[in-house]
Amino acid sequence: MAEEVSNKQVILKNYVTGYPKESDMEIKNVTIKLKVPEGSNDVVVKNLYLSCDPYMRSRMRKIEGSYVESFAPGSPITGYGVAKVLESGDPKFQKGDLVWGMTGWEEYSIITPTQTLFKIHDKDVPLSYYTGILGMPGMTAYAGFHEVCSPKKGETVFVSAASGAVGQLVGQFAKMLGCYVVGSAGSKEKVDLLKSKFGFDEAFNYKEEQDLSAALKRYFPDGIDIYFENVGGKMLDAVLVNMKLYGRIAVCGMISQYNLEQTEGVHNLFCLITKRIRMEGFLVFDYYHLYPKYLEMVIPQIKAGKVVYVEDVAHGLESAPTALVGLFSGRNIGKQVVMVSRE
Amino acid sequence: MAEEVSNKQVILKNYVTGYPKESDMEIKNVTIKLKVPEGSNDVVVKNLYLSCDPYMRSRMRKIEGSYVESFAPGSPITGYGVAKVLESGDPKFQKGDLVWGMTGWEEYSIITPTQTLFKIHDKDVPLSYYTGILGMPGMTAYAGFHEVCSPKKGETVFVSAASGAVGQLVGQFAKMLGCYVVGSAGSKEKVDLLKSKFGFDEAFNYKEEQDLSAALKRYFPDGIDIYFENVGGKMLDAVLVNMKLYGRIAVCGMISQYNLEQTEGVHNLFCLITKRIRMEGFLVFDYYHLYPKYLEMVIPQIKAGKVVYVEDVAHGLESAPTALVGLFSGRNIGKQVVMVSRE
Repeated sequence: MAEEVSNKQVILKNYVTGYPKESDMEIKNVTIKLKVPEGSNDVVVKNLYLSCDPYMRSRMRKIEGSYVESFAPGSPITGYGVAKVLESGDPKFQKGDLVWGMTGWEEYSIITPTQTLFKIHDKDVPLSYYTGILGMPGMTAYAGFHEVCSPKKGETVFVSAASGAVGQLVGQFAKMLGCYVVGSAGSKEKVDLLKSKFGFDEAFNYKEEQDLSAALKRYFPDGIDIYFENVGGKMLDAVLVNMKLYGRIAVCGMISQYNLEQTEGVHNLFCLITKRIRMEGFLVFDYYHLYPKYLEMVIPQIKAGKVVYVEDVAHGLESAPTALVGLFSGRNIGKQVVMVSRE
Repeated sequence: MAEEVSNKQVILKNYVTGYPKESDMEIKNVTIKLKVPEGSNDVVVKNLYLSCDPYMRSRMRKIEGSYVESFAPGSPITGYGVAKVLESGDPKFQKGDLVWGMTGWEEYSIITPTQTLFKIHDKDVPLSYYTGILGMPGMTAYAGFHEVCSPKKGETVFVSAASGAVGQLVGQFAKMLGCYVVGSAGSKEKVDLLKSKFGFDEAFNYKEEQDLSAALKRYFPDGIDIYFENVGGKMLDAVLVNMKLYGRIAVCGMISQYNLEQTEGVHNLFCLITKRIRMEGFLVFDYYHLYPKYLEMVIPQIKAGKVVYVEDVAHGLESAPTALVGLFSGRNIGKQVVMVSRE
């Protein structure tokens, strides 16, 4: 007889317009049978860490034909997380395994592992890292920088939203390769972190710059070889005029645009021609085959203290709506994680 | 004793704001000594055909740090042309040679051949073709399509400004490869030409479409693999939402924007991410090493009537200002050329 337990959930109440608010979500208590449905290959998990990621904003509206589906209003939010297997109908997973992948914003979930679900082998690092440096954002930074940007030693690299889950890693990977790296962020604290903790050569607070193009010219008098794009809008326009010939722009995200009903127009695309720039969008899903190679590279670097990762951990499922909403005002310092349970 | 002859010139009077007008230019009569300056490797030429190209608009304003220089107000306009060598200080060229490359908008020019100047070997084609299909626009179409778009047989291709000097060739090259090709242009006459003369599968008049995105969806129900971008602005926005996954956009020009004081903003760049699109600007200068290979391919095709080229030839240097200005209102049908002298 399966154990039935209470299960706290974070529910999206309705599709969201403009900036998401905490009141767009609610906490609900239900019960769940901790049992794999008869004949299925589902996996029953206890959620430990949940990941707050900017792409989740798009799932809060009615979308069609995109790479992700809308959240279902009235149902728990879903997203990346770290979880412990309680029971498994899938032979690839056993009770007691730790996994990361798509799960629900609730204490317990029943996952149909048709989506990416990775078994965690190395537990000698903080488990929460599998929502960040060792999970989707880490792979995003690695693939986006090494596979999309075609970086070379000595090149100049600009990263926006540079202290975020992805940006802080792009900066460190670029430094490891011998690039000159500058990051932008939205507070003095974040700017300090970029320089003192992540080893960026320079950093600036975009909110304090009247003229973003002039700011970039200050740090890149000879231009930018590589732009790792996380924000879009005005920053992209300022970057375009500061790119070098044959520059590359990896388009990872455009967080400044996600809550606008009408996105800002980008005016300087003619620079793509005059400077022969390649601008390329990418999604991490296309690069998961490189995940083992990435872990092999990054885990020793973490253990040697050569790559660091800053997380902003909110405690308890009840704090999840605040944590998620905070992403879009830049309240988080580093990767935003919600700890549901320590184990 | 060098012959001194009269030399008619087209002078740019001042930098231009907004749409260029004929009155921005004037015809001037000067005299010229048809003699290579002592000790120089200049080439004295008689100009036969002059090329009107959209990129020339940018040279009519004060520009800095671009791939081209501004025209000098008070001096003749310069541009691509076909000319006959009268005297040469450069051992690569002899009296009587036909050449194409950068020359002046005047009857006779003294060219310092540090810039691209090509000797014409095959004269068994219309000489004016060396301003078009066998010159810069031809190489632009060839390199832009084959080198930048990474085309594959069976892919869907959209070309804007499709009846222009470059567009008509991109469409034909794409058909030769076995692609499905649709073009847009600005009049019924041009649209008819696309289908009847250049073999586009479909074509439409963008001026008659209320909703460009809906028009594209009509012709590309499953999306666009390759967009050859000649116009920018609203068309680019409409294309972005109609691109297929892993689509490619070769950015060749943005003629709809050249006469605007404030360019239109492009709003749908987020599609670059969701569809993993590569958008790449290019300039023909980077591909001239492929010119011999291109000629080897295209000349037999021209002679066999398998590739055609439509030119709009204005007669006489006096007609050059009208011809150039007409480019920006789309008055020309096909490649705009000015015939200065038949030989």
